Parts: sequence; C-alpha cells; structure tokens
Amino acid sequence: MARLTRRALLQRTAGGAAAILGQVPLDPTRIQGRGWRPQGERSPFERPERRPWGPEGGVSTSPLQDLGGIITPADLHFERHHAGVPAIDPERYRLLVHGMVDRPTVFTLAELKRFPSRSRICFIECSGNGQRGYRQIEKDVTPQAIDGLTSTSEWTGVPLATLFREAGVKPGATWFLAEGMDAAVMTRSIPVEKAWDDAMIAYAQNGEALRPEQGYPARLLLPGWEGNAQVKWIRRLKLADRPFMTREETARYTDPLPDCTARMFSFEMDAKSIITFPAHPVTLAAKGFWEITGLAWSGRGRITRVEVSTDGGSKWEPAVLQDPVLPKCHTRFRFPWRWNGSGALLMSRATDETGYVQPTLAQLRAARGLGTLYHYNNVRAWRVEADGRVFFGLPSA
Amino acid sequence: MARLTRRALLQRTAGGAAAILGQVPLDPTRIQGRGWRPQGERSPFERPERRPWGPEGGVSTSPLQDLGGIITPADLHFERHHAGVPAIDPERYRLLVHGMVDRPTVFTLAELKRFPSRSRICFIECSGNGQRGYRQIEKDVTPQAIDGLTSTSEWTGVPLATLFREAGVKPGATWFLAEGMDAAVMTRSIPVEKAWDDAMIAYAQNGEALRPEQGYPARLLLPGWEGNAQVKWIRRLKLADRPFMTREETARYTDPLPDCTARMFSFEMDAKSIITFPAHPVTLAAKGFWEITGLAWSGRGRITRVEVSTDGGSKWEPAVLQDPVLPKCHTRFRFPWRWNGSGALLMSRATDETGYVQPTLAQLRAARGLGTLYHYNNVRAWRVEADGRVFFGLPSA
Repeated sequence: MARLTRRALLQRTAGGAAAILGQVPLDPTRIQGRGWRPQGERSPFERPERRPWGPEGGVSTSPLQDLGGIITPADLHFERHHAGVPAIDPERYRLLVHGMVDRPTVFTLAELKRFPSRSRICFIECSGNGQRGYRQIEKDVTPQAIDGLTSTSEWTGVPLATLFREAGVKPGATWFLAEGMDAAVMTRSIPVEKAWDDAMIAYAQNGEALRPEQGYPARLLLPGWEGNAQVKWIRRLKLADRPFMTREETARYTDPLPDCTARMFSFEMDAKSIITFPAHPVTLAAKGFWEITGLAWSGRGRITRVEVSTDGGSKWEPAVLQDPVLPKCHTRFRFPWRWNGSGALLMSRATDETGYVQPTLAQLRAARGLGTLYHYNNVRAWRVEADGRVFFGLPSA
Repeated sequence: MARLTRRALLQRTAGGAAAILGQVPLDPTRIQGRGWRPQGERSPFERPERRPWGPEGGVSTSPLQDLGGIITPADLHFERHHAGVPAIDPERYRLLVHGMVDRPTVFTLAELKRFPSRSRICFIECSGNGQRGYRQIEKDVTPQAIDGLTSTSEWTGVPLATLFREAGVKPGATWFLAEGMDAAVMTRSIPVEKAWDDAMIAYAQNGEALRPEQGYPARLLLPGWEGNAQVKWIRRLKLADRPFMTREETARYTDPLPDCTARMFSFEMDAKSIITFPAHPVTLAAKGFWEITGLAWSGRGRITRVEVSTDGGSKWEPAVLQDPVLPKCHTRFRFPWRWNGSGALLMSRATDETGYVQPTLAQLRAARGLGTLYHYNNVRAWRVEADGRVFFGLPSA
C-alpha cells in the first residue's frame, strides 16, 4: 500500500481524477447526501449478477466470486426452474396433505405461519452443480460458472413433522410425493424419515418472505439434500408406502454408473469445497501475500476440516474455518499464501463430521464414470500462471 | 385449519376468487412462468419497508414485525445518517491511518481487501433505539416504531488490529478518532483496546458489497457497541493519547443522569429483547395456540436466557432460543402460548452471558432518569385485549 505524509495525502486528494459518474462528487463531505429510502439500493458501482447457464433460461448461477462470508443475498440466490417462475397469490395459496393420512388436510399460508416456527441457516445446491468442471473442462470459467448453483440462506418455516402429525400419517407410510404449483408441476418422492428429521415447509428467507424464484409463498426445505427435491411453490404432499417414480427421479436426477446400474434417490449432497479467490478471471497483480478463500459444505453435517494445497496436491495444509461452522451450511475457509511469482496449482479438500473426504477428480470419475449428470463434488483446481493469470482445471485433465 | 376431502378441495380451487393482480393466474400450472433474472425481485404481494422516524429523514427503521430468523436483508437494514447518504466512488476511496503511529498510511479499497479477512454475524443498534417506549409511551406503535433501529447482518472486512499493526501504533496511543466521508464528517473517539479486541473495517454485508446506507465502500464495525460509533464511509483513523471530545460524544450520545452527572462513552449495548409477535397492529383472530416470538441481543456476548411472561411479570417461563446463538448478535426466541381469550400482558426479559438481566422500565427510569436519550433497554410489554387487539406498553406507564 502507499505510505505517505499528510501533506502528500492532501495533495493527492486535491488533484483527484474526475468523477466517473456525474452524480458522484469529488468531495462527498461538501454535498448533502440523499435521504432515507423504504428499501435500499446497491451502489451504482456494484453490479453483482446471476448468470444464465445455457440458453433455455431455467438456470441462473450465484456470483460466488463476488461474495464474502456465507450468506447469499436473496436476490442473488441461484435459480433453477423447469417451466419458469410462477406468479402466486398468497391469499389463494393452499397446501394439501393427503394419501396415507388419517385426516386429509388443507393448510392456508396463514395457517402454516401460525404453527411453531423454526429457522435454519443452510445451503441449497442443485445436484447438477459442477458439471462444467467434470467431463470436458474449460479453463476460462469462474467460480460462478463452475459452482454457482449453491447458495446459503436463513430459512424460516414450520417443521414438516408438525404438519404430518396434524394430518396423522398412517404407520405404513414410508414416502411422500411433493408437488409444485409451477407449470412443470414438479414432483419428487421423499422418504418420510426426512420429515421426522429436519424437513420444513419454508415461507421466509433471510428474514423476509421467500423470493418468487425460491418458491414464494412456500417451499419444501430438505437441509443437505439436492435442490431439485426441495420442491418450490409446494402445493401437495401425498403419503404412500412406496416412491412414485416420477420423471424427475427416473429420467432425471438419477446417476448412471460405469457398470450400467444407476444410483437412484441420491439425495444427500456429498462434502465439497471450492476456492473462490484467487480464481478466474482474476489476475494477481504482484507476488507476495494473497489470502486464499472459498466455501466448503456437506449435506451430512458440519465441515470439520478444509485443507489447501498450492502445489497441485503434494502438500496439504489446514485452512482456517470461519465461525459460525453450521451443519449442512456453507462454511467460509481462509488460508494465508505467499505467492513466489512462479506457477502454482491451488486446490481445496473438505472433510465433514462423518469423516467423508472430498474425492479427487480421478477418484470420482473412476467411481461414477463420465455419464453421470449430478453430484460433481471432486476437488477443484485453479492454475496460477507466472504472469498472475488464473485458470480453471488440472493441467492434465 | 380447514380439513376437507379431496372432492371439496377440488371444488374450492375451481371456484377460487378472481386474481387480485392481473398478472397472477388462477392456476399457475397452466402458464409458463417468467425466465431468469440477473437479480431477483420481491413478490408484488410483499412490500416490507423501512419507515422514517421523524420528519428530518435521517432515520429509518427496519420492519422487525415482518422478519423471521435473525438476518436482516441489506436493503431493509435500518438507516441513520446525519447529513444524508454520500455517493462515493470506490476507486477514489482512501482510508488514512495517522497520528500516534510509526508509519502514517493510506489504504485503497483494494489494499483493504487484500489483507486477511474476517466475517462476523452481529447486530448494529442505534443507541437511541427504544425512545418511543420510555418517556411518553404511545400505545399504537409497532415493533418497528419502538425498536426498528437494530439489524443483524453478516459483515466481512479486515480486522482493525491488522491495519494498526501495519501503521505501527505507538505505545502511548489509547484512543483513536474515526472520521466519516459524509457531509456531517461524523467523528467519534474509540478506545484502542476495541481494535485489539474485535473491531473491523467492513466492506461487505450479507455477502455482497456494503449498501450505501451502511457505509459503502467501507465502515468501522464495533461489534456490540452503539451504532453511532461505528462510523460509516470511514476515511480517517487518528491515533492519540486521549479522546477527541467531538460534538457527537459530548452534545450527543452522552447520557445525562438524575444526579446531574452524565455517562460518557457508554459504548456497550446492554442486553435487551422485544416480542415481535404478537404485537401492534396485529389482532389475534381467535383464542387458542399462538407462538410468541421475538429478538434478544446483548453487546457483551451471547444471550443465555430469555424469559416470557404472559401475565405482566408475575410468572416468567423460559423461551426457546433458536440456533445459532451467536455473541453480540440477534437471537430469535420462541414461546408456545395458549391464549384463553381474556386480557393478557406479554413481556420478555433477556439475560446475557455476563449475568446481566434486562431491567424493568421502573428500574431503568430510577437509574437513568427521564432526561436520557439513549440506551433504552428496559423490558417491553404488549397488552392483548379481550377482542384480540394488541397495544404497546404497561397499563400504568
């Protein structure tokens, strides 16, 4: 940084560059600022944006490289919808619980909100996240392009167990169908055990009502499980003694394996991490100190360890985990690094409280083959070149 | 809630009321929803808003009664500014550290971001918060009107200790001046100990860049201390061996006491709580179960206990504290209540990890008198009338 005398500072300030934008004064202390607003807006200098993933418009990614900490602002939470975002009148909203229950029941939104509430800070990740870092690897991709289909929010709602007790789930019911109110009428089958564990019907996100893209006015929340199963715009829960074998869990969201079998109902998101800085398209301006930072998460509980390698995996050292480290939640990690100005290969590797360790790309490819479309949790790598530019992927991949 | 057969449900849905807004279809499953957006927007049915506090426009409050959990969306975080919100070009932003230091130093924003970062979820509260519930008590006030000058965000930045070590704080330096870049040129004196403890220069809020109202591009963050001292749009830190006795810590933000002395530099926010539901202007629709919920916080650490009374303070029972319970952070509490349909007087009382217990209104008035303008952390009360309407304040106050 620049070290200088007060005299030099005053000279520099007086001779400052012309304003980039007309509304920005050279000296803000000379001009009364604007007054209060009902809702704040971003500085005109800041434009964090989701980006579309492919041409069809049903996917947009969260700008991981622009975000610090663990919370994702609701308007930057990734989107995934299969027939667009429906417009729903909360007064007309109803949630039906039926099937193998003693008392088929319809809940209004006000009724859902009247039950005892819970709040939980957790991630939601599309199980297709990471696809661009698995089969064919592009080097000019950002953390957003690789892994932007994961976001963390504080969700508030009613435990699904409460609703199931109200409706009286029959003893033989082991699965339930979750159906959305969107034009895809998204349907997934979920084991009833998840309801007795930690599933919720969420109606609030980061304090306020859900945003439309995240299921307004209410969604299923299955902490730690793949995003697709956490049906948004939820309108129906049907209890049964077997899964419903919907399109979304047979033709999609099932993982073909090299031995020609397939993993089905692979709900849990395995432990994973990604370095978000330094990462493409950053260019490191000079050698010396740079903080490596990123996110780690696991659908099975807390992250217990993140290790960082700067030499492509020969040597691993522990990163610092930023408090709070919450179960099934993004965890921010930080690692101090002194760049010596030559090529480097940066990697991170997460371990969760079950002892599961994030696999290498080679390990995951060996186990799952190249045909799989979901659950790409392999170790990611960023190549730092001698000129400071940063690119994605292992040199050999 | 309504219990009904599937036939009755189908009939009810088919005969649903006309759409409130033209763009909302009666059956959202029949119409392709809209596509992705770079930044999400709220549902048109949801309009959470800050509200101005008095005519001068330098204060706006966060809608506490509309929020669940603990996180406040950045655009609903309360505002307090003394000469409006300045427009600042981040490229021209500089932070000067000088005075009793070995190396007077100027930091650009990029330089601040290059240092090792920290993130922290904590509240910021204006020490004038609660003024409308202390001296003259109005009954038609909401949680927002009483206590809306507190919000919780995840803040990311650089520890102030790092910058002070860079500049080399001289041994005799015990205070520093913090100066803002707004038209008020806000100045406060802060003990250097706070820098060695947990003070930060924050440049991000809930993941993204600070919003202009919260100090874009950088602010002083003093976890647990009064908001006014956490100078926004921070441009200068001057180390000294005594406080600077600025207007904002002499004519303002000092607490006159009944014995004609005054509390000065009363930085720490004492433990406090408020029930946010049920609260004015809610009317309880029927007797029976209602969840009482609210927020508790302390500038000295974690909340360890919140007790709720539904009979005006004769009997107190423990509320459930929602995880995570973080130090110097809003903590959500919940309490199951069965309303018998007659008048009730709802109160909450917070205790923090130092053992400090939130005082009653009578206790606080006895200690501080009626002339004080800050630090109103007395127990709040909501009167539920037999018709279900809810009003603020003790009947006798």
